[in-house]
Amino acid sequence: MKRNKSSKNGSFSRRDFLKTGALSGMMLGSGAILKGCSSENGRAQPGDAKNIIFMVSDGMSNGTLTAADHILRRHYDRTSNWISLYEQNRVSRGLMDMASGSSIVTDSAAAASSWGCGQRLVNGRVNMTEEEEPLRTILQIFRDAGKATGLATTTTITHATPAGFGANVMNRGDQETIAEQYLENRYDVLLGGGNMFYSSEHRDDGRDLYSEYEEEGYKVVRKKDDMKAYDGNGKLLGIFYDGHLPYTLDHINTEEYKRDIPTLAEMTETSIKHLSRNTNGFILQVEGGRVDHAAHGNDAAGLIYDQIAFDDAIGAALEFAENRDDTLVIITTDHGNANPGLNGVGSGYSESEPRFDRIAEFRHTNNWFLPQLDENSSISEIRELVEHATKIEIRRDEAEILRQAYADDYENLHRMMSRPWPVMGQILANYLAFNWIGTSHTADYVELAALGPGSDRIGPITKNTDMFDLMIEMAGVQEYQEG
Amino acid sequence: MKRNKSSKNGSFSRRDFLKTGALSGMMLGSGAILKGCSSENGRAQPGDAKNIIFMVSDGMSNGTLTAADHILRRHYDRTSNWISLYEQNRVSRGLMDMASGSSIVTDSAAAASSWGCGQRLVNGRVNMTEEEEPLRTILQIFRDAGKATGLATTTTITHATPAGFGANVMNRGDQETIAEQYLENRYDVLLGGGNMFYSSEHRDDGRDLYSEYEEEGYKVVRKKDDMKAYDGNGKLLGIFYDGHLPYTLDHINTEEYKRDIPTLAEMTETSIKHLSRNTNGFILQVEGGRVDHAAHGNDAAGLIYDQIAFDDAIGAALEFAENRDDTLVIITTDHGNANPGLNGVGSGYSESEPRFDRIAEFRHTNNWFLPQLDENSSISEIRELVEHATKIEIRRDEAEILRQAYADDYENLHRMMSRPWPVMGQILANYLAFNWIGTSHTADYVELAALGPGSDRIGPITKNTDMFDLMIEMAGVQEYQEG
Repeated sequence: MKRNKSSKNGSFSRRDFLKTGALSGMMLGSGAILKGCSSENGRAQPGDAKNIIFMVSDGMSNGTLTAADHILRRHYDRTSNWISLYEQNRVSRGLMDMASGSSIVTDSAAAASSWGCGQRLVNGRVNMTEEEEPLRTILQIFRDAGKATGLATTTTITHATPAGFGANVMNRGDQETIAEQYLENRYDVLLGGGNMFYSSEHRDDGRDLYSEYEEEGYKVVRKKDDMKAYDGNGKLLGIFYDGHLPYTLDHINTEEYKRDIPTLAEMTETSIKHLSRNTNGFILQVEGGRVDHAAHGNDAAGLIYDQIAFDDAIGAALEFAENRDDTLVIITTDHGNANPGLNGVGSGYSESEPRFDRIAEFRHTNNWFLPQLDENSSISEIRELVEHATKIEIRRDEAEILRQAYADDYENLHRMMSRPWPVMGQILANYLAFNWIGTSHTADYVELAALGPGSDRIGPITKNTDMFDLMIEMAGVQEYQEG
Repeated sequence: MKRNKSSKNGSFSRRDFLKTGALSGMMLGSGAILKGCSSENGRAQPGDAKNIIFMVSDGMSNGTLTAADHILRRHYDRTSNWISLYEQNRVSRGLMDMASGSSIVTDSAAAASSWGCGQRLVNGRVNMTEEEEPLRTILQIFRDAGKATGLATTTTITHATPAGFGANVMNRGDQETIAEQYLENRYDVLLGGGNMFYSSEHRDDGRDLYSEYEEEGYKVVRKKDDMKAYDGNGKLLGIFYDGHLPYTLDHINTEEYKRDIPTLAEMTETSIKHLSRNTNGFILQVEGGRVDHAAHGNDAAGLIYDQIAFDDAIGAALEFAENRDDTLVIITTDHGNANPGLNGVGSGYSESEPRFDRIAEFRHTNNWFLPQLDENSSISEIRELVEHATKIEIRRDEAEILRQAYADDYENLHRMMSRPWPVMGQILANYLAFNWIGTSHTADYVELAALGPGSDRIGPITKNTDMFDLMIEMAGVQEYQEG
C-alpha cells in the first residue's frame, strides 16, 4: 500500500487548507460552541469528531437544491433540511472546487476519491495512482483506528461514489471487484442496490458473494423489513435491487417497491443505529446517487423527488447528530449536472410557478415510462403514457419527435440532446419551465455545508482533497500505520 | 412619501434578520477584527460602515461565476477577484433568496427594489406600493444623512437595477422619468449608458436633460477621457452611449469604443474618487448589467467577458476598501439567468476543456454579428461572419437553421429557444460545451459575499429585503425623517 502523500522530512505536513482552516476557525470563534464543539477555547480540536457522516447528493447543481426546496415550500409546507440549516445559521458553508486530476469537469469516481484518499485522480479511477498502486482509503484509515465504517446509497453499493471511500480499482466499472474488496476490507454496514454484482446468477465469475459475506459473519438482508428488524451486532450487507434503487417518485407509487425497498433516510437511520454501537465512533457515507442519474436523463420529477429523499436522509443524520458534540456532518455534492433551473416565463414571469408546480402532480419519472416506449410506439400510445405519468398532454408533434429520437432519426440543434431522454426533458420544459443545459456533469464550484466539530474550518471555498485532511484531522485518526 | 415599514408602537423594529445577524455576528467573533472592523469587542457596530459599495453582477447564475473564473485561470493566469476573496477567506458569504412579491422568479426591478426600499414588490415596479405610492429609497436615505450617492452601470443609467436604489416608478420601462428623478434627487455621481433618455433628440418630450443637469450644477461628460479628467467637486453625470454600453469583448476589439467608453472598473474608480470626498461617507451601487443581457441572449463570450469586467470592478472597489475599516462592500447578483455551465463532453470528459477554451479565442460576441444577419443572408455569409467573430466554422445545416430562425420559420424542441439569439447559443454549444437552459431568469438562490463592517452579519442564507436593513443599520443612517 502506497503512502498517499508525504512531505520531504518524512512527517506528514498539514495542508494549506488547515492553515486557512486555522484562520477560519479563529474567525468563527464562539460559533464553535453554538455548533456543539467541546474544547476549552470554544474551538473544536483534532480528535473531537468521534463520528463523521459524509452526505453526497450526487450531481447536484445549485438549481437542483433550490428547486427541491421550492417544491417542498410550495407543496409540502416545509423547508428542506438543507436550507433550514442555513436559515437557522447552524452550519458553516462554502463552495468546493471539485476538479479532478484530468479535467475541471470531474466524474464521480475521481470526485469521491478526492475525498477518499486526498488526491486528484484521472476521471474513472477509484483510489489508484498512475502507477496502478492502491491508495489508502478513508474507510480503511478509520477502520484501522478502530472505528466502524459504513456506506449507504441509492445506487449500486459498488458505484463510484461509495467506492471512492473504500475501494481501489483502475476502472470504476469494475463493480464486481469492488464488491469483493468491501468484503476483504470488512466494512461494517453496506446498504444499497447492486444484486447484479453480488449474486452468482449475475456475476461473471459465478461467485455467490452473499454466502461469502455470510461466512465472514455478515448479516445479509434483501428487504426493507429484514433490514429494520435486524438488531444484532454483526456486520450488515443490505442489497435491495438488481441495479440502482428505483427513483423515489416511482418508489412512492409502486407498491412492491414501497414494501421491499428502504428509503435513503431509512438506510441512513439503520446505518447509524449499527455504526454508533462502536464506542470508538464511526464514519458513514450517505449518497443520494440518483439525483445525478436524473440530471443525466433530464428527468425533472426524478431529480426533485430524489433530492427530497436525500434531504430526508439529512434529517435522519441530524436526528442523531444535532444533540451531540462529537459528530461532524458534511453535506455536499460531487459536481453539478445539467444545471437545471426554473426558467421564468410569461409576462412578469407570471407563468413560472403554475408551470413549475406541475412537477408536484407527477406520478412517475420519465425514466419509468420511457423504457416502455420505442420507435414503434404509436403517437397516441406515447401521449397516453406520458399523460398517465405526468398529467401533461404533450402535443402530437412532440410525441412524433420522441418517436424519431428512438429511431435515431432526430438531431436536436444542441446535438447532445438528441436521444429520447433529453428529448423528453426538452418537451417537458415547454410545460414545466424547468430545463437543462445538457446531459452531463458541469464544472461549477459546488455547495458545501458542515456542522459539528471541524465545521468551523470550512472557509468560503474548499479544494476537494482538503476534505480528506479535514476528516483525518478532526477524527484524530492516523493516516498511516508504521511498518 | 410613505413610510416603508413601521411597527405597531411607531418605532421601527429591527427585522428578524438583525436578530439572526446578532447571532451570526457572535459566531464570527474575532473574524470581525480580521475583516477590518473597529469596535472594541471586535464586532462591527451600527454606524461603523461610513461607506457602502454594493456590487451587482446582474443575472449571474452560479455557472457564470465559475466559468469566468475558469477562463481567467486558464488564459489570464489569475483567479477572479471574487473567488480570490473566498480563497483568502476575506469575506462572509452565503446564499440569498431573491423572490419578488409576485414570483419566485424575480425581475431586476423588483430585485433591486428589495434592496433599495426593503420590500418585495410585484415584478416590474421600482420602489412603488400597490397603492402607487413611492417608497423611500436607499439613496434618498443616505443623501438625507449627508452622505454622497452614486450609481455606475454598463446598462442605461436609468435601467432597473440602478433605478431600484434611487427612483420610484410603476413601470421600469419609464426610463425618461427615472432620468428626471435622478436630477430631482440630486444624486452625486451617475455613470453609464442611456443617451436616449437624456438627449432632446431622443426623448419623447424633447427635453434636453443634459442642460438641465448642468443648470443644477452637474458636470456632464460623454467620453471616457473627460470623465477621467474631471477633478472638480461638483456632481457628475457621465453618459457614454445611446443605450446600454457595448459588451466588453466588443469594447476590447472596437477602437472607438476603447477610446471613448470607460470600463466598469474605470467608472467604479471615478465614482469612488468623487464620492469619497464627502467626509460623511457615501453609498455607491456598481452594476455589471450586461451579464444578464448576455444570458438572455445565450451569448457565451458576451457573458464571460462582461463577468470578467464586473470582476475588474470588484478589484477597483477593493483597491479603495481593503485597507480601511469603514467600508462595507457587498458583492452579489439579483437572480440567476439561463444557468449556463461547462457541460462535460468526451470520454472521461476529456473534450470539455479544449472546447470551452475556444471562448478565449472569440473576437466578438454573438450580439455583435447577429444584428448583421437576417433571413436573406446567404449560408456562406452567415458562416463567414460567425467564423470571423468566433474562429468557429459552423456547419451548413446549422447556418440554415439560423436563417430559418430569422424568418420565424424554425421551432426548437424547447420552444423558448427558437429565435436567432438562442439558436446561435445552441449551435455554439456544440463547439464550446457551454450551454443554457433557456433565455430568462431563474429561481435559484444566489451568491452573496461581503467584507467590511457588517459583513459578519451575513448568515448562510439571507432574504433580499434584509440587505436594506443591513445597509441602514451598519451605516447608522435614519430610515425616516420626522415631520
